[in-house]
Amino acid sequence: MEPTKRYKTFTYNTSLKWQQARQGKLSSDIKPSLDVSSPPEFKGIPGMWTPEDMFVASAEICAMSTFLSFGGRRNIPLVSYKSSAEGVLEFVDGKYRFTKIRILPEITVGKEWTREQVEEAVREAHGNCLIANSMKAGVEIDPTIVLV
Amino acid sequence: MEPTKRYKTFTYNTSLKWQQARQGKLSSDIKPSLDVSSPPEFKGIPGMWTPEDMFVASAEICAMSTFLSFGGRRNIPLVSYKSSAEGVLEFVDGKYRFTKIRILPEITVGKEWTREQVEEAVREAHGNCLIANSMKAGVEIDPTIVLV
Repeated sequence: MEPTKRYKTFTYNTSLKWQQARQGKLSSDIKPSLDVSSPPEFKGIPGMWTPEDMFVASAEICAMSTFLSFGGRRNIPLVSYKSSAEGVLEFVDGKYRFTKIRILPEITVGKEWTREQVEEAVREAHGNCLIANSMKAGVEIDPTIVLV
Repeated sequence: MEPTKRYKTFTYNTSLKWQQARQGKLSSDIKPSLDVSSPPEFKGIPGMWTPEDMFVASAEICAMSTFLSFGGRRNIPLVSYKSSAEGVLEFVDGKYRFTKIRILPEITVGKEWTREQVEEAVREAHGNCLIANSMKAGVEIDPTIVLV
């Protein structure tokens, strides 16, 4: 989301080939192909990436990327960033859908910054996360900030 | 979406660790870890899976999985299934978001089935795709059906 690109339209392409049972091979351009499956509770194979995982991961990675972008512009003294995310799939109005994704980042920054400055960067980034903006599921972010 | 599981709630968990620049390592349980990044147009590294790819892929894989589920119940004589998908990211109302995902499956089935039967299974499955149901982006599916 650089200012010079503000009104551009971007496209993203993936392709998929059924292998067997509930399993497929996912490709996109030069990226490494991935074995994907339904989750075990929907008759898939354990240990493979699922659409449910990828939906949650897309929000989690976008939260980090957007924070890195906003923090970068402010020269945040970032030491480390990690997060966990949980998506909740519920049966609502006759259909299953994700109702909530909760992202818990642990962000370590140099102590020349205050906790409030980091929180503000997280909030600002979160409001601009293009994946969260594309979801019906509510995406919540609850950071833990460590100053070192 | 098996009937016996209809009112259960499921949770999906992922975790992420920042590596450098706009790059991270994505994990989930026993699945192989993935190097992920922003796309190159948002300062990421080419050749890595991005949140944008995963968002599109989640809808594409879900479309296949749901079709396999609905087709399986009807004993569809499935020979092959592959698809391509494209997601369109646009700047709308001051923010970037995915406005549309288009999925193009090519489905080959034994000719004891008709094109109309396959189309009906695709339509029914599409209305029950839990990922599409979770997106603000409109998800369209336009199958090509081959009878052999």
